Formats: sequence, C-alpha cells, structure tokens
Amino acid sequence: MVDTHFYQNNGPFELAKIAELTSSTLSDTSKAGVQIKDMATIKNAKEGDICFFYDKKAKDEASQIKASACVTTKELAPFVANGVTVLINDNPKLAFLSLSKAFYDLKTPKSSISEKAFVDKTAKIGKNCIIEPFAVIKENVVLGDGCRIESGAVIEANCQIGNNCRIGANAYVSYCLMGNDCYIYSGARIGCDGFGFDLIGGKHERVPQLGRVIIGNDVEIGANSCVDRGALDDTVIGDGCRVDNLVQIAHNDVLGRGCVVVAQVGIAGSCTFGDYVVCGGQAGFADHLNIGSFAQIAAQSGVMRDVEPKAVLLGTPAIGFKDYMRQVAFLQKNSKKQGG
Amino acid sequence: MVDTHFYQNNGPFELAKIAELTSSTLSDTSKAGVQIKDMATIKNAKEGDICFFYDKKAKDEASQIKASACVTTKELAPFVANGVTVLINDNPKLAFLSLSKAFYDLKTPKSSISEKAFVDKTAKIGKNCIIEPFAVIKENVVLGDGCRIESGAVIEANCQIGNNCRIGANAYVSYCLMGNDCYIYSGARIGCDGFGFDLIGGKHERVPQLGRVIIGNDVEIGANSCVDRGALDDTVIGDGCRVDNLVQIAHNDVLGRGCVVVAQVGIAGSCTFGDYVVCGGQAGFADHLNIGSFAQIAAQSGVMRDVEPKAVLLGTPAIGFKDYMRQVAFLQKNSKKQGG
Amino acid sequence: MVDTHFYQNNGPFELAKIAELTSSTLSDTSKAGVQIKDMATIKNAKEGDICFFYDKKAKDEASQIKASACVTTKELAPFVANGVTVLINDNPKLAFLSLSKAFYDLKTPKSSISEKAFVDKTAKIGKNCIIEPFAVIKENVVLGDGCRIESGAVIEANCQIGNNCRIGANAYVSYCLMGNDCYIYSGARIGCDGFGFDLIGGKHERVPQLGRVIIGNDVEIGANSCVDRGALDDTVIGDGCRVDNLVQIAHNDVLGRGCVVVAQVGIAGSCTFGDYVVCGGQAGFADHLNIGSFAQIAAQSGVMRDVEPKAVLLGTPAIGFKDYMRQVAFLQKNSKKQGG
Repeated sequence: MVDTHFYQNNGPFELAKIAELTSSTLSDTSKAGVQIKDMATIKNAKEGDICFFYDKKAKDEASQIKASACVTTKELAPFVANGVTVLINDNPKLAFLSLSKAFYDLKTPKSSISEKAFVDKTAKIGKNCIIEPFAVIKENVVLGDGCRIESGAVIEANCQIGNNCRIGANAYVSYCLMGNDCYIYSGARIGCDGFGFDLIGGKHERVPQLGRVIIGNDVEIGANSCVDRGALDDTVIGDGCRVDNLVQIAHNDVLGRGCVVVAQVGIAGSCTFGDYVVCGGQAGFADHLNIGSFAQIAAQSGVMRDVEPKAVLLGTPAIGFKDYMRQVAFLQKNSKKQGG
Repeated sequence: MVDTHFYQNNGPFELAKIAELTSSTLSDTSKAGVQIKDMATIKNAKEGDICFFYDKKAKDEASQIKASACVTTKELAPFVANGVTVLINDNPKLAFLSLSKAFYDLKTPKSSISEKAFVDKTAKIGKNCIIEPFAVIKENVVLGDGCRIESGAVIEANCQIGNNCRIGANAYVSYCLMGNDCYIYSGARIGCDGFGFDLIGGKHERVPQLGRVIIGNDVEIGANSCVDRGALDDTVIGDGCRVDNLVQIAHNDVLGRGCVVVAQVGIAGSCTFGDYVVCGGQAGFADHLNIGSFAQIAAQSGVMRDVEPKAVLLGTPAIGFKDYMRQVAFLQKNSKKQGG
Repeated sequence: MVDTHFYQNNGPFELAKIAELTSSTLSDTSKAGVQIKDMATIKNAKEGDICFFYDKKAKDEASQIKASACVTTKELAPFVANGVTVLINDNPKLAFLSLSKAFYDLKTPKSSISEKAFVDKTAKIGKNCIIEPFAVIKENVVLGDGCRIESGAVIEANCQIGNNCRIGANAYVSYCLMGNDCYIYSGARIGCDGFGFDLIGGKHERVPQLGRVIIGNDVEIGANSCVDRGALDDTVIGDGCRVDNLVQIAHNDVLGRGCVVVAQVGIAGSCTFGDYVVCGGQAGFADHLNIGSFAQIAAQSGVMRDVEPKAVLLGTPAIGFKDYMRQVAFLQKNSKKQGG
C-alpha cells in the first residue's frame, strides 16, 4: 500500500476505467464497476488493490494473490488465483507505468524562488522555476523553464541548463552544458577536474582540465555519482542515458544514447561508448576503450579491451559469457578432483 | 595521545578508579594510586598512559609497551613488558569502550535552532534539538527529541524521525520513516528514486518509485552512502544495522537486524537479508536474493545466488571458503606446472 | 577548442613565443611568426591550433593532424602529417602543461567573504580568502591565507587548514589538520567516525573514534571520497598524494608521500602505505597491511597480504603480474580443451 503521507492517491478508479487507462481487456465484464483503491505488489496486495504479474518465476505467488484485480498476459493468466479479476495486457509493465501515473502524482512544490537561495544577479532564470532555500546559482548561469534547483545545490558560473531539469539537493554542477528533462540526483558531482597528473621531479603536477561536460536531453545521473569534465575535449553523456548511484565517469568519456550504467561502475578516462550499452553494477573499464553499441557488460566485470557491438561479457578480464561459464565449471570440477 | 584540541579529557584517573570503571582486577594493588592521564595504542603509549592488549598477534609490541598500565586477559598478561602495571579483564575491548567513555566526551554543541536554518512552519521539532546553519527541514516533517541536524542537511517533506537522531552535514533524507538513535553520516542520500526503467520505443521510461525507506532504531548509514526508496513496497534497514561509507542499497532491499555492511558494498534491488549478515568491503549482490542470517560474505565477492544462513562465502561467483581456497591453490599450482 | 565561455584564452601566441614558453625547438624557423590561437587534441585540432603528440600508439592520428603546429619528440616527429610545423621537445607532456598555463587561467573569483556564509566569531580567517554563500566555518577553526571555501562546504570546530587550500562545494572537513595547497573536492567527507564496533550482547557497540585526520601539503582528495578519522592514532595522508573520486580511506590508514589512489579504491583500516604507491581503480585492501613504496596495484585487485616495495600486483587475491597472466592463459587454454 502506497503511503499517502508521501504520495497523493487520485483513486479510486473503477476497473473499466483502469482497463481503458492501461489499454487492457477486462476478462470478466461483470466486474467493470469494481472500485480499485490502490496498486500493490503481488505479494502484498489485498482486497481493493490491483497488482501486476509479468514474470513467470512469480507463478507460485500469483496463485496466492489477494488483490481484487491483476493485470497480466494471456499466457500467464491461468496462474492467477481464482476469484481475482484478470485484465489481459500484452505488456503488464507498461500497464503498471500508465496506471501509476494515473494513481499518483509526485507532489511538486509550487514554482517559487526562495528568498534564502543565492541567485547571482547576472544569472538568467526561466519561467516557472523552483529554487529552494540555500541553492546557489552563480554568475551568468542560464536556466531554462520549469527547472527545480533543490536545497544546497550549487550551479557554478556560466553553466547552461535546459528546460524541466531537476538538480537534486546538495548536487554540484560546473563547466556544464545540459539539455532538457535531465535529473541530476542529490549529491552528484558534475564537472570536477579530471584526474590528470604528470610526475615531474617527484611531484604530481596537475594537468589543467580545460574541457566541459556536455549532457544531452532526458539524462539521469544518480546520487553521489561523479562525472569529471574533459581535459581538452569534452566529457559527453548522450540523450536518454541512465546513470545510477555512486558511478565514476572520468574525463573525456563519451557515452552514446540510452546507455544504462548501474551503481558503482567506474569508467576510466577517454572511453567511447556506443548507444544502449548496459553496464552491471561495480563493473570497471580501463581507459581509452571503445565499447560497441548494445554491448552488455555484467556486474563486477573488468573490461581491459575494446568491446564489439552486442557483445555480452563478464569476468575480469572480461570475456564472453560461454567462455566465462566454461572457466567457472572447469575450475570447480578440476580443483575438486585434485583436492581429492 | 588524544588531541585535546578536539576531544575534552576528563582525566586523570587513578588506576583503582580505572579498575572499577572497567571491571578489571589490578594485578599490583600497590599501584592503585597511580595517575593515568590518557589512553593510547600499544605502539604509541608512553608513561602516564594506559593501553589495551587483546590480540595475541601483537605480543611482540606488548613486550615493548612504554605505558604505565595495560588492560589485558589473564592469558595474555605474561607477554606484557616488565614494569607495566597490568589490569586483568576477560574482555579488554569492552574495557576500552567503557574507559574511553569515561575519559572523553565528544563535545556536542548546546541545543539550539540556528536563525540561519530553514525550518518550515508546519514542521514539528522535538525538545532539545540542534539545528545548524543552512539545515533545511521541510513541510510536515516530524522530528523527535534530542536530534541534531547538521549544516546543509536536507529533510524532505513528511519525513518522520525519532529521538536522538543525528543527520550529518549535507546529508539528504526523503520519503523516510526513521526510528530512534540513528546516525545518518555526512553526505548520505536516503530515499532517492530507485533505478527502475522500462525500455519502451527506444526510451528508458522511468518507473514511478512509490515506496519509502523504513529505518529501524540504532542504525548507522555511512558517509556518502545511498539507500534508495522502494518502488511499491519499502526499502527496510533493520534495528542495529551498521552501514559503512559509499555503500549502495537499492530499492526494496530489506535488511534484518544487526547487519554489518562494509564500505563500497553494492546490493541490487529486492534482496532480503536475515539478521546479523556481514558483508566485506566492495562485495556485490545481484537482485532478488535471499541472504540467510549470520551469513558472512567476504570483501569483493560477487553473490549471484541465495545464501544459506551462517554460510561463509567469497569470490566471484561467490563460493564456500574451502572451495575458494582449493581453486586458488589449484590455479597457482597447475598454471606454474604448465608454464614450465 | 577550449570553450571561452568557461576559460579565458590569453592567446594568440606566436610560435617563437610558444617555443620559448615550452623550451621547444622550432623545426622550421620561417614559421616563428605564425599565430597560434588555441590548444587542442591531435584528433580535433584545426588550423590555428597547436597539438601535442607523445604516444606512439597515436601515430595514425598524427599522420592526419590538421593543426598548424605540433609539439613532439625527435623520435616521433617523422609521423606528423606534412605541412604541420613541428616543435621538438623531450617531454611534450611537460610542454603541454607549461603552455596550458600560459593560454588559460582558471577564473578565480575575487577574495571576499560572503554575507551569506556562516563564520563563527571565534574562527581565524587568513588574508585573501574566498568564503562563498552558505559555507560554514565553525568555532575555533584556523584558516590560512588565500583559501577558498566553496558554497555549502562545512568546516567543523577546531580544524586547522593551511594556506591556499580549496574546500569544494558541499565538502565536509572535521577533526582535521591540513597543510598548504590542498584541494578537497566537492562532496568529499574528511574526518567522519571510523567504522568500529564491538558486538556486545547482540548489539554493535560503537567504539569511540578519538583520532584525527592529518593531511600534508599539496594533497588532493577527490569528489565524494571519504577519509575517516583515526580511532586513537591518526589517519594520515602524506604530502603530494592524489586521491581520485569515490575512494574510501578508513581509520588509521597512513599514506606516505606522492601516492596515487584512483577512483573507487577502498582501503580498510590501519593500512600503512610507503611513498608513491599507485592503486588502480576499484582496487581493495584488507586491513592492517603494509604496502611498500613504489608498489603498483592494478585496477580491481584485492590485496590480502603485505606488499613488497616496487611490486606490481593484480587479481584477487592479488599476485604478481607474470603469475596472473600465466593463470589467465592457463584457464583460457585448459577450459577450452576440456570443454571440447
């Protein structure tokens, strides 16, 4: 049950309305008028709730559903507990998405610029922005319409930020050009100096970092993640990328469109990713690599060489899925043999 | 020697008093009146100090102790340097704990609400709270008694926080119900959106995250760690958990009581931990796993399957201790053989 | 091309001047008067730019240079495209460093103490400091000359900070003595409690952390990195160390001079590093280890034992370079053999 303390519930909705909102087919039209109060997981849903069943692995749980209704596929419908009204949908995940938007609006504060924020007089602020207490917007910043700059966020001088961007609490944005519809999570660090030194006479002399961070449209950078600015060229995060928490993206990395980078991944400098690359959590990439589009790198892998498009790699050094599994099996079998 | 610039020393104490405070037995009662000025490590203690010897590995250092007194067990006492007065205690670590609380109080500022903080007028603030400059407490927040909200910390709307909690500088707390006696360290991020997307028409559509973070009593979340809120159900951190720095805890994770999660661990979504699970640094967990109570997962391990209670695992993929050691030995031996 | 929106260009400079500034020899003195407007990478440089060629791997790109001039070594000069004026230099990286300082000054705001900062009246602030809005400087802090304390940074009570230090936005510094010329990046956490507990009666009793963090001169601590303070002795970061982003340095670690710690490395408590140790990204260190000077630990390695000076290790558990390569080759070869 969603906590209405935090999220406003726009329900209830009748099942007929839910079928319409989610483009589902109601299996038992006599239930069209049943009122649904909330959404819940298969496991925790109770009478008055609707739940979503899309993974066959959960079929035992499906047989125990206590909800009034369940959205599922034609194929999975027979697994749903008797007495639960079924709504058939080719894509129950999409139905969940649509319905959750109908049931719940995330409360957004009204647009306003807090008197307790610091906005330099040379900054240009778009329409309908929210600027919270103790946010800092420095000289010559250009901020689009509908942006939300949360408490303690710092936008350094000369940055340009598009429309409908959200900069989370205590996040830091510097040397950055950002598109529209981006969300920089709380504590993320954008545009810090890349990690570049030359050892000269026993001293690590800092190499000036003179590039920027270019962030496309519809990008998310997770909480406490870091994206360093380029050294001479730019660090680039392509349209639609999703970067999770505590990720390190180093100077001059270039990510294509729609890449997914899970928590705690580290990408060393000057790597170039194609489009829709997926990196599992804690994976690491050596510097100057080319990673082909649609490549999938498993969690904790260590990638030391260029990766072909659509490759599926895991392990350190990262190798193909079959090779990895073969090595794991070989080690398991032979170490036991010899141990005995 | 503890720096009295930072920590106020309540000493000196006579050895008789120290024996009493720590429930130790003074081996030479003629030394009952000796004054002890400070606590120090075996290695750095000097005259006037007391030190603590509880690990046999340090017996060479014990034979060189320069301190006036040493708390140790009956078994280890013979290793202590001549001339050092010994206090016998079954648990010298506990004695250290007790004595350190007697010698040093961490200076806590007096309770007060800074005029430079932002406290929404609808927020309810308990008695004897400290709210530092530029802390932000938003609408409808409920804060218990004796809480300390440090500079730059942000408590989002509707959060409920128990008594005697400390929210560190620049930490962020949102969509959260928190018990008593919790410490959220500087820069921790509680309640950000979980990392959930559906790829629809080439776009990673965000799945609304409608859950909360439920934090029990006596929980610590380390510096710059992230605990995402649940998607529909909640993310739960049980009573007495200790989470170190830079840890990622994803949406819908449920940790039982007393779990210890060392720095840089990453736990993917929907994992369920029993009680007193211990995770070494940089370990990673795939999503939807069940980890049994008292399981111990070594540093850097990659856990891909459910884990039995009390299991001791290491490696990637994580396996039992003996199996791992056998594999390491097998590889070492046979690769050399073949290499020659 | 460097974006003059963010970086002020002091050029153009004539090639003769550039040869002088970088101690290079102009191969074709008839070009002494050619005007150079900017610096750029080999790949993106165009007419009017100068670039730098120092890595033989880039020789194909060197043959395509579009820049007006290129600084390179005598050995590499023949690979440079025809028509590009070559400046010969034994160390083109150093030339880059010198020239970038001539071309670009990072704009530093004028010294001033913002009215919107919080500076306790007992704090001592040196000359020519910049203290930005919403920075917090607590009681008895001593700050040297020429420091920059950025927005949202918090300096806890009694800390001492040398000259010309920069404390980044939303960084946190506590229980710390810091030398000169240090840069603590945005979001770094210095001096938080070490992770120390004793399990007593089913409760993880916190061990008071009574030490400090001692930071030498010319140290950098990267964005969102954490350096915990010592338990009784201190945590020490030696002169000239370079610590990248999202690094964990635990209580009582001691790093010698000039160590380089790449992003996401984790060092457990009470480790002692010699001088100029280099740790690749995501490497992990068990507690209480001694790591010899000039040791090099590869990315993602797991170090479980003491390391000899100058050792080159990789893998988990970390082993010598040759041993590692032999094991990787053995596994690859034999698992395939058996698989067939």
